Amino acid sequence: MTSQALDDGGSRLERGRRALAEIDGEAGHAVVAALADIAPDFATYLFEFPFGDIYCRPGLDLRAREIATIAALTAMGNAAPQLRVHIEAGLNVGLTREEITEIIMQMAVYAGFPAALNGLFAAKDVFARRFPPAGGSPAPGA
Amino acid sequence: MTSQALDDGGSRLERGRRALAEIDGEAGHAVVAALADIAPDFATYLFEFPFGDIYCRPGLDLRAREIATIAALTAMGNAAPQLRVHIEAGLNVGLTREEITEIIMQMAVYAGFPAALNGLFAAKDVFARRFPPAGGSPAPGA
Amino acid sequence: MTSQALDDGGSRLERGRRALAEIDGEAGHAVVAALADIAPDFATYLFEFPFGDIYCRPGLDLRAREIATIAALTAMGNAAPQLRVHIEAGLNVGLTREEITEIIMQMAVYAGFPAALNGLFAAKDVFARRFPPAGGSPAPGA
Amino acid sequence: MTSQALDDGGSRLERGRRALAEIDGEAGHAVVAALADIAPDFATYLFEFPFGDIYCRPGLDLRAREIATIAALTAMGNAAPQLRVHIEAGLNVGLTREEITEIIMQMAVYAGFPAALNGLFAAKDVFARRFPPAGGSPAPGA
Amino acid sequence: MTSQALDDGGSRLERGRRALAEIDGEAGHAVVAALADIAPDFATYLFEFPFGDIYCRPGLDLRAREIATIAALTAMGNAAPQLRVHIEAGLNVGLTREEITEIIMQMAVYAGFPAALNGLFAAKDVFARRFPPAGGSPAPGA
Amino acid sequence: MTSQALDDGGSRLERGRRALAEIDGEAGHAVVAALADIAPDFATYLFEFPFGDIYCRPGLDLRAREIATIAALTAMGNAAPQLRVHIEAGLNVGLTREEITEIIMQMAVYAGFPAALNGLFAAKDVFARRFPPAGGSPAPGA
Repeated sequence: MTSQALDDGGSRLERGRRALAEIDGEAGHAVVAALADIAPDFATYLFEFPFGDIYCRPGLDLRAREIATIAALTAMGNAAPQLRVHIEAGLNVGLTREEITEIIMQMAVYAGFPAALNGLFAAKDVFARRFPPAGGSPAPGA
Repeated sequence: MTSQALDDGGSRLERGRRALAEIDGEAGHAVVAALADIAPDFATYLFEFPFGDIYCRPGLDLRAREIATIAALTAMGNAAPQLRVHIEAGLNVGLTREEITEIIMQMAVYAGFPAALNGLFAAKDVFARRFPPAGGSPAPGA
Repeated sequence: MTSQALDDGGSRLERGRRALAEIDGEAGHAVVAALADIAPDFATYLFEFPFGDIYCRPGLDLRAREIATIAALTAMGNAAPQLRVHIEAGLNVGLTREEITEIIMQMAVYAGFPAALNGLFAAKDVFARRFPPAGGSPAPGA
Repeated sequence: MTSQALDDGGSRLERGRRALAEIDGEAGHAVVAALADIAPDFATYLFEFPFGDIYCRPGLDLRAREIATIAALTAMGNAAPQLRVHIEAGLNVGLTREEITEIIMQMAVYAGFPAALNGLFAAKDVFARRFPPAGGSPAPGA
Repeated sequence: MTSQALDDGGSRLERGRRALAEIDGEAGHAVVAALADIAPDFATYLFEFPFGDIYCRPGLDLRAREIATIAALTAMGNAAPQLRVHIEAGLNVGLTREEITEIIMQMAVYAGFPAALNGLFAAKDVFARRFPPAGGSPAPGA
Repeated sequence: MTSQALDDGGSRLERGRRALAEIDGEAGHAVVAALADIAPDFATYLFEFPFGDIYCRPGLDLRAREIATIAALTAMGNAAPQLRVHIEAGLNVGLTREEITEIIMQMAVYAGFPAALNGLFAAKDVFARRFPPAGGSPAPGA
């Protein structure tokens, strides 16, 4: 999938829905569902601006966009649920576990060791759920 | 240049010096020089850990590393001088002006419009100095 | 209740106790009780400065003060327990659920979508506890 | 002017342009103009999402919205230019100087004294430019 | 133990291991163990730079270094697990419970009351585990 | 001077004035003077809470309090003027230039290299003004 593929017309809302589904997968659906009874319009904005407008722009591919997002959320250190969603999204758009780990480790330089440590432990959890060992429980090497 | 090329042996300090020179260029030298009379050991740490250890790791190329750094510094919003150095560094390792602009714009989603606006104006200044118009003064299209 | 009503004399400590009780209700008492064995003087400062000094000032009504606090705590994104207390406090001083939701949504512009999302989910929890459905469990429309 | 008045139809872009002009005035125009040669699309997003979508929503009046924004930008402490624009915007939508000063002072409680001090000095500058003394230079009481 | 004692030769890695063990104790071991399957190199960096390089420098004793770290982590407010580790570390290098409480309370001035409150509750937990009452459960005066 | 010496009675306001004068010196006076025409009550709060209440508490000496403040303001990275005031204050209460430099360098571990670099350059400026070379201009070794 390329960002070009996402930009094939339709309204911002439709384009955003499609992009959110492709990038965030199940995690994106869960966020939107949780908004239904508190702020349904906010789900619309979430489809439209981040996904319908920004992620669909042709000037940067989705792999680069997820590198940027994982880095920023790790560095800010105050958005743990969203960091997990975007570690998943990074895997969805083709980043390897090693690459994601490298991005997060690098944040020690810019935001300190605690931010990087908390990011690494988030990645550890996401990887363990996404790549369960044959035996059925998260393995040390996951 | 690839990160592989940076990892060809030598001490952490030597490797870091080489990496800093290739990535940050003049701006890196200026930072190190400014540290000489207040904290010369900190210049050594700057060579060794961020550049000798992290940027030289083989698991992520320098283009991806600069995407991550530009994103993080834009989102944090409290490190304006370092953001400018890394916008330059992004250009040094092959990011285009358009790509850098896309990364910074995307930060509006994760850190708000003010962080993105301040990042865009930093990029505008760096681009104007780096790509002066033929007439000798920063041009509208720089 | 108006901030004027809070400013009817007495010591800063008494005035602050009265203001904290009126604004934060039970949640305020819980915070003060939890401080008793670690830092009882800090409970005194909490009564005196934020509540005895600031919230009792006549130049801004309590409704406006809670708008400011809910906005700031949502945007900072690193004070989840206090955000919940002040969503309650906002209801206590007359903000509607819709107004609180609007304030938090607006923070997407200034602090990014993750900060707004985390604020909305905090509000969802507070509203569900405060306005339980007839059936006795938090309802979708709470 | 009420937010209701802003919501009288037209596209998001038109509605956002009108809202930005009414709320931010000259300062808003300057930001948009400065974006022209680096990221013109970002000016469009700025019209559309913050102003065309959020500020025009009927659930909260503009006075309350500017209280929220001034509070958040003061507390975050890393968006000085935007704080100045919104201190002006606060005056534009009817907040008094005293009310703006109260909002900023209150942030000492939530984000510390340095954030409040820096916010107060920003307000002092904006007030001095906006309400010049008869004698032509910023007066002590401005 | 003095920082001088830590600086008695050996490689950065060995020196850092020794310093981490002395300063952070069990909590430090747990962090390193948790990194083993996600980013073992990061454990090496953690030994080498913070502990092998910085904490072993002779210009500031460990007591002063832990005052600085507890203050910073309380003020930043986005690194709760690391704050707990360093409250323990503060006790390990000789800070009293009262001194740690004073440092955290002071952060109300610089980072706001929520940051100080969250820091105090972290300290309360650490103290209760470290100094259990005779009866076997955390006592009010712990 | 010890914090004990500051706590010899008088009102919070008087005690705070005395403490501010001893700790912050000229820089403190300048801040208070600048508040006179925008928010004179805030100067009172600044005397009373941070200085009259917190800095005068007996449980931690002023040297330790300034270590904590310099660390926190460096790590937060969004309060440059206040960091400079407290680097001065650190010197006023007996910290050496070397100790202040060590505190700031250590923040690279917790808040990243940019925060530490910006803190070091602030210290460089303060030291150069405070310890001018014999020749009359800031010297390399200042």
